[in-house]
Amino acid sequence: MSHWLYLVAAAVAWEAGKPLVIQEVEVAPPQKNEVRLRILFTSLCHTDVYFWEAKGQTPLFPRIFGHEAGGIVESVGEGVTDLQPGDHVLPVFTGECGECRHCHSEESNMCDLLRINTDRGVMINDGQSRFSINGKPIYHFVGTSTFSEYTVVHVGCLAKINPAAPLDKVCVLSCGISTGLGATLNVAKPKKGQTVAVFGLGAVGLAAVEGARIAGASRIIGVDLNPVRFAEAKKFGCTEFVNPKDYDKPVQQVIADMTDGGVDRSVECTGSIQAMISAFECVHDGWGVAVLVGVPNKDDAFKTHPMNLLNERTLKGTFFGNYKPRTDIPRVVEQYLNKELDLELEKFITHSVPFSEINKAFDYMLKGHSLRTIIRMED
Amino acid sequence: MSHWLYLVAAAVAWEAGKPLVIQEVEVAPPQKNEVRLRILFTSLCHTDVYFWEAKGQTPLFPRIFGHEAGGIVESVGEGVTDLQPGDHVLPVFTGECGECRHCHSEESNMCDLLRINTDRGVMINDGQSRFSINGKPIYHFVGTSTFSEYTVVHVGCLAKINPAAPLDKVCVLSCGISTGLGATLNVAKPKKGQTVAVFGLGAVGLAAVEGARIAGASRIIGVDLNPVRFAEAKKFGCTEFVNPKDYDKPVQQVIADMTDGGVDRSVECTGSIQAMISAFECVHDGWGVAVLVGVPNKDDAFKTHPMNLLNERTLKGTFFGNYKPRTDIPRVVEQYLNKELDLELEKFITHSVPFSEINKAFDYMLKGHSLRTIIRMED
Ligand SMILES: NC(=O)c1ccc[n+]([C@@H]2O[C@H](COP(=O)([O-])OP(=O)(O)OC[C@H]3O[C@@H](n4cnc5c(N)ncnc54)[C@H](O)[C@@H]3O)[C@@H](O)[C@H]2O)c1
Ligand SMILES: NC(=O)c1ccc[n+]([C@@H]2O[C@H](COP(=O)([O-])OP(=O)(O)OC[C@H]3O[C@@H](n4cnc5c(N)ncnc54)[C@H](O)[C@@H]3O)[C@@H](O)[C@H]2O)c1
Ligand SMILES: [Zn+2]
Ligand SMILES: [Zn+2]
Ligand SMILES: [Zn+2]
Ligand SMILES: [Zn+2]
Repeated sequence: MSHWLYLVAAAVAWEAGKPLVIQEVEVAPPQKNEVRLRILFTSLCHTDVYFWEAKGQTPLFPRIFGHEAGGIVESVGEGVTDLQPGDHVLPVFTGECGECRHCHSEESNMCDLLRINTDRGVMINDGQSRFSINGKPIYHFVGTSTFSEYTVVHVGCLAKINPAAPLDKVCVLSCGISTGLGATLNVAKPKKGQTVAVFGLGAVGLAAVEGARIAGASRIIGVDLNPVRFAEAKKFGCTEFVNPKDYDKPVQQVIADMTDGGVDRSVECTGSIQAMISAFECVHDGWGVAVLVGVPNKDDAFKTHPMNLLNERTLKGTFFGNYKPRTDIPRVVEQYLNKELDLELEKFITHSVPFSEINKAFDYMLKGHSLRTIIRMED
Repeated sequence: MSHWLYLVAAAVAWEAGKPLVIQEVEVAPPQKNEVRLRILFTSLCHTDVYFWEAKGQTPLFPRIFGHEAGGIVESVGEGVTDLQPGDHVLPVFTGECGECRHCHSEESNMCDLLRINTDRGVMINDGQSRFSINGKPIYHFVGTSTFSEYTVVHVGCLAKINPAAPLDKVCVLSCGISTGLGATLNVAKPKKGQTVAVFGLGAVGLAAVEGARIAGASRIIGVDLNPVRFAEAKKFGCTEFVNPKDYDKPVQQVIADMTDGGVDRSVECTGSIQAMISAFECVHDGWGVAVLVGVPNKDDAFKTHPMNLLNERTLKGTFFGNYKPRTDIPRVVEQYLNKELDLELEKFITHSVPFSEINKAFDYMLKGHSLRTIIRMED
């Protein structure tokens, strides 16, 4: 257990939409059930950008963003028994306390204690931040704040992984890639030879495509409003593409016509309510399953005729691909390592920058040029 | 194979909402893939009453209603190999051709060829009716028309059952009871000890309650606008009752408050769109599954906030409890007979009348006094 305050470099967001400032930050020691870790690699996800832009949410600044990362435990707080200094870990924006009804349920990963909270900028133990500059607190982000050389995370939000795993690659399993992959493999569960439609071909959707490819789907229909996405999606295994803008009829009808009545499975990864409805209505009656992943707007309403349900379609939603962070993610890393899972993480990593150039990662994402930019903390 | 035209007594509906008239009707021999059977017992279901009242649908008269029944094969048409005279059968309003994608799918029972069709009053083989009076055709109803001493049914709509089964009881498995039972056992699938809410405590809802009891649910919450239903529902295993009219807050909130966040499973058996939405929103996040059974109005829209889905709830609908008529119903009868399934069919049978008094069955149902009235064809 370390009682030292660390002085480290962190990328601080002082204001909505303004470039992050890399500067010295004090990182307090971990308290009860907390762990301090050194971040080696982190990557940028849309959710960071979304809360950094702070359009439509209550802004919380100054704040340290970042939630996809790989690191090494530096010290542990009281009560932490299953991690020790030197362990390799992936921090996750949602946790697994191991004790609530959700953690006890085989089906849920929505831990009561550690479920994602984007409004809270402090640790749950004492309602305080572990980051400060000259004593003035800097807020946390989703309990991870990985845009810092060191950070403090609740033990329930850390997946302990095989130290043989390359952290500069598996770090992307902290959020979006697992979300899309799990949406297909854990929730939609296409059988070998079935047809799958994926709405939205960003990183999450491409991970859903990757899941469909791994599951042995016979056809993977990618749907996006942006045709630029199609070239990339082909590399991930998409066999066909549909741009809803190219048709006069609703895209669910286009897909039904292509597939003799509908796809067997669909996964929505856009956040658009219209795409959610189309993703549901494009699955085949009798057995079709649609899975929603995208985060909708506050005032959206999902609307469909109930006969679409009575005709034996299933509609589900998922959060973090239904993976339990501590129970399941280490296993995914393991399967990736021993190639049990034919998961090609490299395809998601389009860029890499040293920590000093972290704002470039924001530029790449805003311009739509990147899937994932790895930020190398030690360069 | 019989080539005789039969002259039999049937209850003919000549006009919407007018008493049926028992009179002599000619029943033609079965054609290709058809079976002529003697009906021994039939019962009345809301769907008969609904199409007899013909409010809001295109009326099709004169017509012979009836679709819950038990009978014995009299003769078979060309191509029928798996049934022979003397076999005991339950006719079913929806069929199983055994050859289409739905019949080949493990999950679906929505046969492409023989799926329920309430508008068609003729046999699919030749587009003609097998019933006539002095040569003038009388229309069929959902391919069964069991309010007749003899009827002709497509072989794909007949479940061949163990002749030891009492037809005056198992005949109710032809429609409503299987629908509710299967909605719980095949689709909602509560685990032992889980909590279940059932919306609507008519025959279908009570069969869903029966399913929950058989599955070992710890709490079965019955929801109905009509408190008269609660006394009966108690006999089926309901442990608690909620009348939405007794509360100022939405019933989904009432149920969430009663169950620490929601029930594990819910089954909607009302046909009310509001109940469908409540049934979905009252299941627990993380693992809750809601199953819709009730037949909605044409213009209804199912509407919910997509976050209710993203929080890992599942929404499904079912048709005939997901049972395949020929594959599954004989097994249900078998399990009922050897008490593998603790199914108490007697509880559903509240009345019994001779065929000559069939109109009384309509009265009982319209007044809400009956669950199922058995109509004894031979009395
Ligand atoms: N449920 C979770 O646990 C979880 C986790 C991470 C991300 N997400 C959500 O997943 C979604 C996708 O994330 P991403 O990082 O891949 O985003 P992204 O912006 O990179 O990709 C979204 C894609 O959807 C396309 N799109 C938008 N509207 C569309 C429509 N109506 N039809 C077809 N395509 C449409 C866009 O053109 C874009 O290519 C977001 O809503 C994000 O918030 C959810
Ligand atoms: N999907 C299928 O295969 C299938 C087969 C048979 C019947 N059904 C449908 O199942 C439904 C139930 O059939 P039934 O014969 O039991 O009907 P029923 O009329 O006997 O029972 C329905 C019950 O629902 C209650 N109800 C109505 N609105 C309600 C609300 N908003 N909240 C709570 N309770 C409400 C009524 O008071 C009534 O007690 C019908 O819609 C019927 O068409 C479906
Ligand atoms: Zn928990
Ligand atoms: Zn993310
Ligand atoms: Zn079929
Ligand atoms: Zn019926």
